[in-house]
Amino acid sequence: MADLDKNKNSLDNKDQAWSARFAEPVAELVQRYTASVDFDKRMALVDIQGSLAHAEMLTAQKIISAEDFAAIQKGMAEIRSEIEAGSFVWELALEDVHLNIEARLTKLIGDAGKRLHTGRSRNDQVATDIRLWLRGAIDEIQAELTALRSGLLGLAEKHAETIMPGFTHLQVAQPITFGHHVMAYAEMFARDAERLADCRKRVNRLPLGAAALAGTSYPIDRERVAKTLGFDGVCQNSLDAVSDRDFAIEFCATASLVMTHISRLSEELIIWMSPRVGFVDLPDRFCTGSSIMPQKKNPDVPELARGKTGRVNGNLISLLTLMKGQPLAYNKDNQEDKEPLFDSADTLRDTLRIFADMVPHIQVKADVMRAAALQGFATATDLADYLVKKGLAFRDAHEAVAHAVKACSNKGCDLADLSLADLRAACDLGDKADLIGEDAFKVLTLEGSINSRNHVGGTAPEQVKKAIAAYRKNMK
Amino acid sequence: MADLDKNKNSLDNKDQAWSARFAEPVAELVQRYTASVDFDKRMALVDIQGSLAHAEMLTAQKIISAEDFAAIQKGMAEIRSEIEAGSFVWELALEDVHLNIEARLTKLIGDAGKRLHTGRSRNDQVATDIRLWLRGAIDEIQAELTALRSGLLGLAEKHAETIMPGFTHLQVAQPITFGHHVMAYAEMFARDAERLADCRKRVNRLPLGAAALAGTSYPIDRERVAKTLGFDGVCQNSLDAVSDRDFAIEFCATASLVMTHISRLSEELIIWMSPRVGFVDLPDRFCTGSSIMPQKKNPDVPELARGKTGRVNGNLISLLTLMKGQPLAYNKDNQEDKEPLFDSADTLRDTLRIFADMVPHIQVKADVMRAAALQGFATATDLADYLVKKGLAFRDAHEAVAHAVKACSNKGCDLADLSLADLRAACDLGDKADLIGEDAFKVLTLEGSINSRNHVGGTAPEQVKKAIAAYRKNMK
Amino acid sequence: MADLDKNKNSLDNKDQAWSARFAEPVAELVQRYTASVDFDKRMALVDIQGSLAHAEMLTAQKIISAEDFAAIQKGMAEIRSEIEAGSFVWELALEDVHLNIEARLTKLIGDAGKRLHTGRSRNDQVATDIRLWLRGAIDEIQAELTALRSGLLGLAEKHAETIMPGFTHLQVAQPITFGHHVMAYAEMFARDAERLADCRKRVNRLPLGAAALAGTSYPIDRERVAKTLGFDGVCQNSLDAVSDRDFAIEFCATASLVMTHISRLSEELIIWMSPRVGFVDLPDRFCTGSSIMPQKKNPDVPELARGKTGRVNGNLISLLTLMKGQPLAYNKDNQEDKEPLFDSADTLRDTLRIFADMVPHIQVKADVMRAAALQGFATATDLADYLVKKGLAFRDAHEAVAHAVKACSNKGCDLADLSLADLRAACDLGDKADLIGEDAFKVLTLEGSINSRNHVGGTAPEQVKKAIAAYRKNMK
Amino acid sequence: MADLDKNKNSLDNKDQAWSARFAEPVAELVQRYTASVDFDKRMALVDIQGSLAHAEMLTAQKIISAEDFAAIQKGMAEIRSEIEAGSFVWELALEDVHLNIEARLTKLIGDAGKRLHTGRSRNDQVATDIRLWLRGAIDEIQAELTALRSGLLGLAEKHAETIMPGFTHLQVAQPITFGHHVMAYAEMFARDAERLADCRKRVNRLPLGAAALAGTSYPIDRERVAKTLGFDGVCQNSLDAVSDRDFAIEFCATASLVMTHISRLSEELIIWMSPRVGFVDLPDRFCTGSSIMPQKKNPDVPELARGKTGRVNGNLISLLTLMKGQPLAYNKDNQEDKEPLFDSADTLRDTLRIFADMVPHIQVKADVMRAAALQGFATATDLADYLVKKGLAFRDAHEAVAHAVKACSNKGCDLADLSLADLRAACDLGDKADLIGEDAFKVLTLEGSINSRNHVGGTAPEQVKKAIAAYRKNMK
Repeated sequence: MADLDKNKNSLDNKDQAWSARFAEPVAELVQRYTASVDFDKRMALVDIQGSLAHAEMLTAQKIISAEDFAAIQKGMAEIRSEIEAGSFVWELALEDVHLNIEARLTKLIGDAGKRLHTGRSRNDQVATDIRLWLRGAIDEIQAELTALRSGLLGLAEKHAETIMPGFTHLQVAQPITFGHHVMAYAEMFARDAERLADCRKRVNRLPLGAAALAGTSYPIDRERVAKTLGFDGVCQNSLDAVSDRDFAIEFCATASLVMTHISRLSEELIIWMSPRVGFVDLPDRFCTGSSIMPQKKNPDVPELARGKTGRVNGNLISLLTLMKGQPLAYNKDNQEDKEPLFDSADTLRDTLRIFADMVPHIQVKADVMRAAALQGFATATDLADYLVKKGLAFRDAHEAVAHAVKACSNKGCDLADLSLADLRAACDLGDKADLIGEDAFKVLTLEGSINSRNHVGGTAPEQVKKAIAAYRKNMK
Repeated sequence: MADLDKNKNSLDNKDQAWSARFAEPVAELVQRYTASVDFDKRMALVDIQGSLAHAEMLTAQKIISAEDFAAIQKGMAEIRSEIEAGSFVWELALEDVHLNIEARLTKLIGDAGKRLHTGRSRNDQVATDIRLWLRGAIDEIQAELTALRSGLLGLAEKHAETIMPGFTHLQVAQPITFGHHVMAYAEMFARDAERLADCRKRVNRLPLGAAALAGTSYPIDRERVAKTLGFDGVCQNSLDAVSDRDFAIEFCATASLVMTHISRLSEELIIWMSPRVGFVDLPDRFCTGSSIMPQKKNPDVPELARGKTGRVNGNLISLLTLMKGQPLAYNKDNQEDKEPLFDSADTLRDTLRIFADMVPHIQVKADVMRAAALQGFATATDLADYLVKKGLAFRDAHEAVAHAVKACSNKGCDLADLSLADLRAACDLGDKADLIGEDAFKVLTLEGSINSRNHVGGTAPEQVKKAIAAYRKNMK
Repeated sequence: MADLDKNKNSLDNKDQAWSARFAEPVAELVQRYTASVDFDKRMALVDIQGSLAHAEMLTAQKIISAEDFAAIQKGMAEIRSEIEAGSFVWELALEDVHLNIEARLTKLIGDAGKRLHTGRSRNDQVATDIRLWLRGAIDEIQAELTALRSGLLGLAEKHAETIMPGFTHLQVAQPITFGHHVMAYAEMFARDAERLADCRKRVNRLPLGAAALAGTSYPIDRERVAKTLGFDGVCQNSLDAVSDRDFAIEFCATASLVMTHISRLSEELIIWMSPRVGFVDLPDRFCTGSSIMPQKKNPDVPELARGKTGRVNGNLISLLTLMKGQPLAYNKDNQEDKEPLFDSADTLRDTLRIFADMVPHIQVKADVMRAAALQGFATATDLADYLVKKGLAFRDAHEAVAHAVKACSNKGCDLADLSLADLRAACDLGDKADLIGEDAFKVLTLEGSINSRNHVGGTAPEQVKKAIAAYRKNMK
Repeated sequence: MADLDKNKNSLDNKDQAWSARFAEPVAELVQRYTASVDFDKRMALVDIQGSLAHAEMLTAQKIISAEDFAAIQKGMAEIRSEIEAGSFVWELALEDVHLNIEARLTKLIGDAGKRLHTGRSRNDQVATDIRLWLRGAIDEIQAELTALRSGLLGLAEKHAETIMPGFTHLQVAQPITFGHHVMAYAEMFARDAERLADCRKRVNRLPLGAAALAGTSYPIDRERVAKTLGFDGVCQNSLDAVSDRDFAIEFCATASLVMTHISRLSEELIIWMSPRVGFVDLPDRFCTGSSIMPQKKNPDVPELARGKTGRVNGNLISLLTLMKGQPLAYNKDNQEDKEPLFDSADTLRDTLRIFADMVPHIQVKADVMRAAALQGFATATDLADYLVKKGLAFRDAHEAVAHAVKACSNKGCDLADLSLADLRAACDLGDKADLIGEDAFKVLTLEGSINSRNHVGGTAPEQVKKAIAAYRKNMK
């Protein structure tokens, strides 16, 4: 067998390596269609990290020699340098990141390189690489989430007393503070951070050792590899280990929720920046102009972010569809897991980073917000609550105020604009009209309304400040 | 104001109640289009539960009187009886479960009923109801998951030594045991149980007290209500509390993963039951026949379950699409959250229950499995590993065995059928041919192969039994 | 064989019918899980229609007798009456609409009923039923689309000269007319109508005659049945005929596009009705109020319609997921095709009907729209175009006007508010300043801007009116 | 204004160009986040094509001079050469393909380049480019579809008489021919070709002339541009023209259906190639081996294709989500339309090309297929039909044969293995036993069964050949 010479690399010509039993060459398009190196090479550094941990364990278990391990370490250091320098030559014919690196390693160090793949398979190798990569991505994303959440807290603090209309159905509902509104997003992203941490637990398990599907006949020590690589534990079943992509789907679902929150915030920024609303402005660097309309300043970043919700939802569906009905264990379908996952992680990280930068610089037009809060009978509920406290049943109070609103609406004035007599009349309370006193006008003010909602979760500035303080503490 | 008479119910005629400011009647189709009572009435009992906890707190806070509370309790008991007896009359004109119950309450007990809605809004009420309902559904689903997992453990135990071919790419890869294969699913459903428990934490928070969007001016005690209803805590921001549907999306995503696992198991059952494969049979009660072909026995349950993965994925997309780009706080869009959520929960619960019942009764044809494991050179990897242990580098050993497989394939025989001389020749090892000894034939047996994969996660019966024992312990 | 007595119906007890070869009874939950009668009974009338056409052909081909056919007609008439009267008893144990009707038929008319199923199978029967049902639904939906399109034309005509700001990025871009804006939706729904008509061609093909999967050994005449039922032709391959659900997916994709358009229109209506924008109002009957805020008038119908886009997109994913990777021919998975299809069709029909009713009653506040068009330098492009016509290159003109806008923005005035000298200065044109003359102020008016866009597709009222006329002609 | 010099290009520094009114530079990440040139540069050639048609019309309408047009033509020819040679320098700072080309043009030819953008906007320009690009992609895909369909016809012809078991529920149903099975896919792809042609009609309309959103004040001739570019007509409403992405969604939905069919074919190939089934083999060039198991030959291409169904469905959801709830007219969200569209088109084209190459080389193992058809009582329906022809009602015949199948199943033999007496007894027909004669055994043969299904769409070889001939004719 001429192939056994040192430095002769069976992977030099993968088609034959692949094997002796194959008769035809792989046509070019098929090669491109089935190869993954174009997108999986971004896992190169974690692939090396995983290989080194594997080799270290093989050495400790005396499956390979210390000399082999030293050679592998040296070769991998060289390869890492080549990759970081951009001089590594990726070959499509070598299919994926794993074979590219292994082939290069064998070229550099000979037989020791050929021994690296002992006791593992690409099936468990790739599963390990993706988990290492995703764990890193999750940690980056958590950091961005933290930055964004801090930005929101800062903005909320600045505007804990800035009054704006609270909307339901995009209709004016009740006065709130802008700080309170901002804190709603802090709450959403806090849940996202929780979910991401939960997801990380399930990502951070080691599939290596599952080999192709059934484990290996070498006396491997999986716990040792797990420890070296910082995994919380090992995957408990080899068939499941090579075919499980739950962690990727769970991550993509979590990403969809984050982007859903981003899309909601974006929608509001876009509406708030529309000239008819005019509640906020965004710094120029998050906006662009028009190639034809010289006056335009468009909120590009929020719009794009809102649009990117689509791609992230699409990625989730890609992965769910991919796994639907797949028999055990590994199938080639699974190669399609990486692009959607990479894309969701990239989109999420970039979007959060930009929002973390943008949020503190949202320019609030407090006067416009206040003026808007005075439109639309925002304090009508307060009047109803006033009547309840005077003894009316809530449903009756609601009815009475509805009458008053209708009367004002017809007159084109606000409730607070009425005289006491007119207010009493408008409420149509019959012999109970004198339930309404002069003090009613106090509850109709914006400040009166805001400050009265003074319980956990309420919009009163006191509560908003407490919430900010509590969040700050939790984030530490 | 004539409406203030006791027992006169402004909700009797919601259109006006809704209010005095509306001029036109709601057309019939619009009424049906906007009403939710047809599907949200299934939350009736949790709606009552929530109302009673709210009323109890209003009483404790002296917002309503003890007499009112007693009346509310009595009225609600009556309503619950009516609902359970099927005699409660649901009215489309009253829009949803909340107004239907409140209207009936007021009819039964008069003014006390009108006071129940003090300090809350339908926005926080419905959010509370869905969470209560979903929490119950999750608990049921966890129980079914546990039953299914137990069934899998039992099946795995029975077949810890039953040999079958392990497949990758639906090609014979290496011998495994059926018990090991079954344990892969136990692992998947264990992750699902984890995810469901994580999801439950985020479901189990109380939105009540957020009122319409900003909190309320009544001196409410949200923690008390949370405690009464068994919630882990309160939602921290009123705007978020009424508009957050993350918990429903997270549940639907979790449900999609469970169904993805069910679809994989179903796919395998269907293939295994196909006559050309013939690995298993299913009890008749999970199958049906044909209206035209008298001989048919179709695996209906696995097929339907595989198909239902579609609806559960669809529900997830429905909810994600629903929330995309919604401004704060509550919008009517959110009414569309319930049907997909109910459907995913129902589908999941029913499917798991049926699978929990079916799995222990899967009839395994061990002889057919064994025969199949002897096809397709399942132990070729073992021969390669053997050569490595004799000193070849793995890549060279892989190459040598590929030559041998090709030779056998041409001859139409198995590796174990060759004489030692022929095996040596077929491996094309040149002057290293005598690395192969008689002991090579031992590694080519199914039992030799299985037992050699004896590490955590491997297919060796010893490991499978350990895994089963460990799972049993964890499930307690 | 005792079962051969006339009127004794093997379907009375489907479990045995199903067959003699089954040993166990179907458990209750499995029965409910696998039965479809709860949702497929709505196809009862088309099932009868299809059966009658099949029986007529069997008679013409002398496969059954004229007496049998007469009995079948009589029996089916009776069944139809029972269904329409609501007295037909649907039995879950009989699984689906087909067996329920056939069992009843045999009970009513004896052996002739047992002969109806000759030469067909439920596989081709259900495929025929769905197509008949969907064809009817498409025709209804087309009628609603036509009504909505007519409503849009009427609204556009009324407002062909009503000026509003045209938005891109929700920023004021250029003046347009409201009629022109409305016509954009007329264009979208016209495409939807085209797509629906294209889809109908593929729905309207007859699968009957495919039997279970391979055709039948009876001398059937498929073309005759196709003609009787108004199909355009027959499905050309029996395996495909029973397993094809493309038509349902294509319909659901078409429905998603219609709902996407509806969601865009809804989004605009909701924003336009928000008090800060205030461009339109909706009739009360399309809105509802709040259970807590007496002043609220919420645009419920557009909000719900926007939300329902989610369910329709979800249905599409359900069906695509369902069919992914299904081997030929019929699999039980396919039973899951009906609920998503029904739901998308229902949602579409109801939504279109309500919008067709609502659109003509949109109340336009022309003065508010005009005021808004005067904000935001809407005619800046016109000034740039003016400069181009005076000899500047477009890019230079764009630059000059951007300078002017910035200057005005700093001053807080509009371009038209500047004196000629100031305008020249603001444009920073150096020695070319006198390119700007008094006539520049004409292009800065709203009417000047609108009327200048006078080509096919442009916003000039003349063009809008032409477009309306052209559409009206095409719709006839 | 110093900027007016010829050859000085305001786009050299887009930030200021964009305009004078912007104060801050666009940060690097924001630049990358908002730029599209990385992916939209593949539209460069159609962008040039569109610009030349626009310039030609501007010249004909005397909006620009003949000299300008000549310069533009010359400059564009140079740019095209640079792009084709790979020497064109794409700059991220210039955001997209349009500005990159325009900036280069102005550098090359000066002021004439600045005049090119007269009367258009990037909004209508990009909409035109995508449509041109997609039209080209559709034409390529149709060609691949045709090639695949031809391949299927050839394969079907070769196997018009090759008998295999027809499956429903993956259980043996009735004998069919492999040619008939293959023709089911020919039918599916024929529908896909229809749908693609329908989609192309709606793609092939010209948005150019819509300018930013409202049309332009220049006297443009849109019909002329449409004719030059080969469009069927012009988009009728400018607002719709710049914001419509229906055509992309419709294409993606069509692509999902094609991939659904590919995934079904792939699933069957994978199952058929599994050693337990063994119906077919695939050429080595469509398969790969294993890095660890030397004997493996995996059907990589069908597996990957099945997996890619996920990404194509995901792309559809991306676009639907993207457009949901977008107000008119153009929003930056729309920039996200291109990547999913490109990806679906690329995936579809490559997949079809490979399948067109692979399908004719599917190696059929006719003997294995025939052996499988003899398992599982495939001709039981034929016996039932035989009994009907002898006078039994169909339901009774079905019942009788079910009894016989059960008896055989217990004995472990086939229906054809029984003696006439035993067959009569097994059918349990009581005094009607002698309905069964010796001729019954003829209908139990595979050939008897196949040939009896001799009607349009049936599996009889005669029908299959007719279908092939008819398809061939239609494809010409």
